Order: sequence, then C-alpha cells, then structure tokens
Amino acid sequence: MEFELSKDFLERFQQALNERDSDFIRTVLEEVNPADITALLYEFNGEESKYVLDLLPVAVQSKIINDLDSDTRRSFLANYAATELTEIVNQLDSDDAADILNELPIKTSEEIIAGLEADLRSQVIDLLRYDENVAGGLMAKELIKARADWNVVQCVEEIRKQAESVTKFYTVYVVDDADKLLGKVSLQKLILTEPRTLVKDILDEDVVSVETYLEDRDVAEIMSKYDLESVPVVNVQGQLVGRITIDDVVDVITEQAEEDRQLMTGISEDVEEDDSVWRNTRARLPWLLIGILGGLISARFMGFFEAELAQVTAIAFFVPLIQATGGNVGIQTSSLVVQSLVNPGFVDEGLWKRLVKVFSVALLNGFFLGLIVLGVNRLVFGNNPLNLVVSLALFFVVVFASFVGTITPIILNRFGFNPALAAGPFITTTNDLLGLGVYFLTIHLLM
Amino acid sequence: MEFELSKDFLERFQQALNERDSDFIRTVLEEVNPADITALLYEFNGEESKYVLDLLPVAVQSKIINDLDSDTRRSFLANYAATELTEIVNQLDSDDAADILNELPIKTSEEIIAGLEADLRSQVIDLLRYDENVAGGLMAKELIKARADWNVVQCVEEIRKQAESVTKFYTVYVVDDADKLLGKVSLQKLILTEPRTLVKDILDEDVVSVETYLEDRDVAEIMSKYDLESVPVVNVQGQLVGRITIDDVVDVITEQAEEDRQLMTGISEDVEEDDSVWRNTRARLPWLLIGILGGLISARFMGFFEAELAQVTAIAFFVPLIQATGGNVGIQTSSLVVQSLVNPGFVDEGLWKRLVKVFSVALLNGFFLGLIVLGVNRLVFGNNPLNLVVSLALFFVVVFASFVGTITPIILNRFGFNPALAAGPFITTTNDLLGLGVYFLTIHLLM
Repeated sequence: MEFELSKDFLERFQQALNERDSDFIRTVLEEVNPADITALLYEFNGEESKYVLDLLPVAVQSKIINDLDSDTRRSFLANYAATELTEIVNQLDSDDAADILNELPIKTSEEIIAGLEADLRSQVIDLLRYDENVAGGLMAKELIKARADWNVVQCVEEIRKQAESVTKFYTVYVVDDADKLLGKVSLQKLILTEPRTLVKDILDEDVVSVETYLEDRDVAEIMSKYDLESVPVVNVQGQLVGRITIDDVVDVITEQAEEDRQLMTGISEDVEEDDSVWRNTRARLPWLLIGILGGLISARFMGFFEAELAQVTAIAFFVPLIQATGGNVGIQTSSLVVQSLVNPGFVDEGLWKRLVKVFSVALLNGFFLGLIVLGVNRLVFGNNPLNLVVSLALFFVVVFASFVGTITPIILNRFGFNPALAAGPFITTTNDLLGLGVYFLTIHLLM
Repeated sequence: MEFELSKDFLERFQQALNERDSDFIRTVLEEVNPADITALLYEFNGEESKYVLDLLPVAVQSKIINDLDSDTRRSFLANYAATELTEIVNQLDSDDAADILNELPIKTSEEIIAGLEADLRSQVIDLLRYDENVAGGLMAKELIKARADWNVVQCVEEIRKQAESVTKFYTVYVVDDADKLLGKVSLQKLILTEPRTLVKDILDEDVVSVETYLEDRDVAEIMSKYDLESVPVVNVQGQLVGRITIDDVVDVITEQAEEDRQLMTGISEDVEEDDSVWRNTRARLPWLLIGILGGLISARFMGFFEAELAQVTAIAFFVPLIQATGGNVGIQTSSLVVQSLVNPGFVDEGLWKRLVKVFSVALLNGFFLGLIVLGVNRLVFGNNPLNLVVSLALFFVVVFASFVGTITPIILNRFGFNPALAAGPFITTTNDLLGLGVYFLTIHLLM
C-alpha cells in the first residue's frame, strides 16, 4: 500500500543514518515500494543515499536509480565504480540501460557494456545509435514475437521463455519470416482462445506502428490519439525492432510542457534551477537582451518627443500603464492562439473569422479598460485633456496588441517554428514598442 | 496502418459530401481507424459531420464522439435526438458514458439514462455522483474481479463472461467476500500458471490503490510515480469500486499543463479561443485590471518626481527599459522556481542555498546588462551623468526582481496556492512597480 513520509519517520531515519544502523534501515525499507524509497532519498545527500542503496537488493537499487531524473542521476552515479554500475545496469530493461549509459562518461559506459549479459549487451548496443528524441531512442528491445502459423500453445511457450526478460507486456506481436510486422494478438484474446487455434486466425492486422526515426513528440501524439498502452517500432524495411510503452511517453509529454513553458517565460536553454550559476546566467541573457534592446529603442523614440515631454511632464506618468497593458494583452492573446494551434477545434473557423472574434474581444476589453482609467484619472488628476488621450491610446493599444498576439504565433507556426515562442518576451517587447508608438502618436495628433 | 490526410483526398471527400454520395463515403471510411475519422471531421462543419457519422456503424460513431474534446462535443451533440444518443452511449464504457451525460442538458441526460442497458445504467448512476476532478470521476466501473479461493480456470471463466463489457484490461483484481481489495494477478501470470493453481497462491498483495475522493492531479502523480498502466479505486471502506487507466491520466496531465500555462499568461478562467466573445473578454479582464492598477500606481508615483522630470526630461526615456527588464527577470526566475517546486531535486538545497544561487545569477546578469546599457547610452546619448544612474538602477532592478521572482512562488506554494500563479501578470506588475521605485530612488540619491 501507499507509504507516507512523516516528519517523525524522517527524523528517526536520519538518526539511523547518522549511526550507520544498517539493520534498522534494511528492516524498515523491506516492505516499501522502490518508488517510495526514491522519494525518501531526495531528503538526503548523495553519500547518505549511496549508503542506503548499498543495503538494498540490487534489483531494488536498479529500480531506484532508474527512477531518478537524469540530472540528479548523472551527479549521483559519479560516486559509483564501474563494477557496481555493471551489476545495476544488468537488472534494467534495454531502454533504461541505454538511457543511463548515455549519461555516463564514455570510458565508464564502455566498461559497463563489456560486463553486460550477452542478450542485453547486443540490445543496448543497437539502441545506443539512436538519438534520445526519436522513437528508436525511446523504445525497448524486449518484446514477445510470434509467427502467424503458430498455435496458441506455442505462443504461450514463447511467452514463458521471454517472461524473465520482458517485465511488463500486454500484446504479442506477430511477424513473418523476414521479421516484418503482420499484426498483434492481445493477452486477453490469447487467454480466451481454444489452445489449438492458429495465431493467424486471431491476429489483429489493424496495428498502428511507428518508425525508428519518428520524433518523440509525434510518438506521444500517435499513442494518445489511438489510446495505445504500447506501440511497436519498425525500421525502414518494416521489420519489428522494438516497442514503446506509455510510461515513457508520459515523460515526453511532461518534458514538452516544461519546454514550452520555458520558451514562454524567456529561458532559451533547457536549464534547471539547480544547474550552475553560469549556465543559469547564459540561459537567461538572450531574452533579457531583446528586452534591453526594446528598452533602448523606447528611450531613443521618446527622445523625439522631448519638447512635448518638457512641456507636459505628466505624459511620462502614463508610459508604464500603456506598456504594461500592451504586454499583458499580447501574451494573453498569443497564449490562446498557441493553445488552439495545438488542439484545433471541430470546426476550423479560418483566419478571417478568428481575427473578427479577436477584434471583438479587443474592442470590448479596450472599451472597459479605457473607461475605467478615464474615471480614475478624473478622480485622481482632475479634469485634464491628457485623461482622454491616455484612455484613447489605451484602447488602441489593446486592439493592436491583440492583433500582434494573434498573428505572430500563426506566422511562426506556418513557417515551422514552435508557436509558443510568440507568447514569450519577443511579443512582449514588440508590444511595448507598439504601445509607446501608439501613445505618442495619439498625443501628437490630439494635443 | 496510419492514414494521411492529403489535400487531394480532402477535396474529393468534400465533393462527395456536397453530392451526399453515401456509397463513396462509406467505402472510403470502412478501413480507417475511428481516431483518424475524428481528425478528418475537424475539417467539416457540424451538419456535414453528422451526415458522415450517420453512415457509419454505431460502434464507430460512439468511438468518434468519445474522442472529441468536450467543448466541441457539447455543441455537436445538440444536433442529436435523445434516442440517437441513447444508442451511442450504450456502446461506451461507463466512465466515458458518464462524461458525456455530464455535458448534456439534464432532461436529455435523464432520457438517455432511462434507455441504457441495465448494467451500464446502474454503473453510470453510481459514477455521476462524483466530481469530474476526483478519482471517482475518472474511474470506469468495468473490471475483472476474482476471489482468492478460485483457481486459474475459474478466473479465466470470469474473464470470458466479462470480456464483452471490459474492452481493455491487463490485470485481474482479487477481493474478499465483502468486496475488499486483497491484491491483483496480471494476465501474464495467469497465462503462465498451471490451470489448477489457486488465485491466492499467485496473488500480488503489493497493489497500489487510490480512494474515490483523491484529486485527479494526485492520481496522475501516483500512476506516473509507480509506472502503473491502471490503478484500482477503492471507497472509504476499502471496497473495490472501479479502476482508472493510464489514457485517462494522460488527459489529466495535458489539461494540467494547459491550466498552468493559462495562469502564467494571465487568463483567469478555463477558456478557449473559440468560446464566445463575452466569455473571452471576462476571462482576461481580471488580470488586465491588475496591470492597469499597477500602471495607475506608477503614474501617481511618478507624479511625486514631477520636479526632477521637468528638469531632466531624459529620466522618463529609461522608464520602459527599467520596467521591461524587471518584468522579464521576474518571470524567468519564478518560472524556474515553479519548475523545481514541481520536480524537487535529489538533494534539496534548502531556501538559503537557493537564495545564494539566485543572487549569484542575478549579480552576473545585472552586471552584464548594466555594462551593455552603459556602453550603448554612452554612444547614443553621449557622456551624461544619467547613464551611470540608469545602469546602476538596472543592476539593482535585476537583483530585486530575482528575489521577488524566487520568494513569491515559494510563499504561494507554502500556503497551498498553485505557484504557477506567481509567474503570471501578478509578479510582472509587482516588478514593474518595484523597478520604478528603485529607478527613482537611485535618481533621488545620485542626481
């Protein structure tokens, strides 16, 4: 059952750790699910964690190490000798083994490969040539293959043979002499069919497969579109070479959401808070520089209106209001457009209808905001001709920013860029400049 | 195999639709996976889509309608009579049936429930009392239950009986007389075990279950933590009442990412671009008003420095630069903190170490940006005492905004709010004001 990390337990556990009380630790962790032990270890440092792991059976150790996120694992495994690692990697499925080997220094990884069991070694070597972000890099080699002319009993025999290496499976894949994928048989069907029945008579030929070079995002899309718990992977000759399970794809979906969010918040490299100071700095500078460039252009632009500003200083007071609103409206609009580009609606409205709607929303928002600001300014600054100018400019800024926020992600998407880019600092900076232009143009025309 | 939507095919299909050429449509769609037909229908309007669906077997119709996203489905199903809907819902699993019934007007849904087959009706009525966003609202009632004192043959018999209603399953759940969950047996084990073996001898008691009232986010977390393809749901008495499969949880993860993104981009309601103009307007106004409030406070604040501004108009030129940088730094920082709150690292660094690192990154970024701006200003505006003030203010703004961006999500998280809130307009507005304050304070002190 589930396991709760209580404060009392943690304190008791830390005490046992300090005293290196191996009996206590071993006993208390015996019944605990490896995934819970992983969560527990996040509370301790690398050295303590290794001490705990060394007390556990190697099968549990390997599960825990496999559960770690890859950055944490990379630094944690630096404490391990190649021989220890070989023992651990030998316990893993081929896809997980390849992932870990990819993270290790090349020398260590060669030493480990040399020590792997023969089957696993050849599987891992085959997997290592694929990029991490394609189907070949996600797949595991372990699967149950059957021939169309076998009967159910022969199929079950094959499952028995493979059962030790294939830990979790729900489908038997059927291939021809040349290993070409013909179809699949679910375990459910196998259980319910009379033993002498031939595989070809219960074969489901309508099987969705992916090719080794398909990008991980596309694999995730296909699996969630067809509601698959696993998908067979074929090479360009149509031969079955592996399978991808849904748990790997859940990780892809989570990472993708994270990546989009980083783009939107102006972080240009895949970086985490606990990466080095220098890496964190470098990941942020590019977008910050775009903002700075926008700010410098703003400064130069306002320079042209020095005369007006010197005459009516209050003009400057409303620059933040105009710019903030332009930025906020732009981000809101583009975020919704990005969302609808990812999940198109049942009835695609077409660009024209979409723009009409965006304009309607903008007109309403602009009207409300302009009115509110007019009221407040009247109360705070009294009856001033600038009030009307500010509210009018605000109205136009809302309308223009909505337009830019709509059109930018659509254009980026059409030219093959990730539209989420548009919801980030790029669009904010554009809208800042646009807002300033609209504001000073309104002043120029009306005052 | 997979199906490609070519432009030629679409044109040909549209033509067949215009001519109401039912033979062509039926023939061409016969071999196509329902999920691909769903994608195809997104190209046509509601009336055309219904015409196509009516030509297909009711099992395929129900799969397609089940695939639609809920907003699209709500409007699409308005074209259907209750009798048609009853036929379709009768084909669905209990969880999908309950989802659709929840979206329909209460009168229609009552009519449909009355027309359902007895088993499905009682299952659906049981499901309808749960909220959409708890385990009870995600689960399906269809599952295979076995008793511990049965043997493997009896188990297979039970599977045979249920196989018609349970479309996809990989695990048999074992319960006692009172329906209390005792453990599980995988299909894999069932296939490999000698038929006379008792269930209790192959039972895996180490089964993770969730309770009906657990929130969907937590269900997703548990399933991905323990790598489960399905999880049994128990009520407060520990009785087995349903099961949740991984495909439902993939939807939860996707929706959650979308929700966080909406919060971060200042959209306060769950809204899509194709919702009504009024709903779109209402979802955006609250955050825009916060921005406006910030802008008005900025205006009032700058009013206090009217004398300085009148004397040196150029002070106003750099307000956009200062504010944009503060906003960008704040969003970047909080986005990384939110990420690390969601995925804690192996070694939790603690608040203090975290702040030291944030400050280091901020000092580096602030130093670079200040230097660059100093250089550019020197070139563009010549040797002016304001240049140094601007760069110094910029440096402090970067440092303060990093601090606010770090501390806000941590505080929100500690008090149980979604920390993603902090990466949105709230933190931008705070940093806008902060930036302005720092800038004018620096001017006041140095000029």
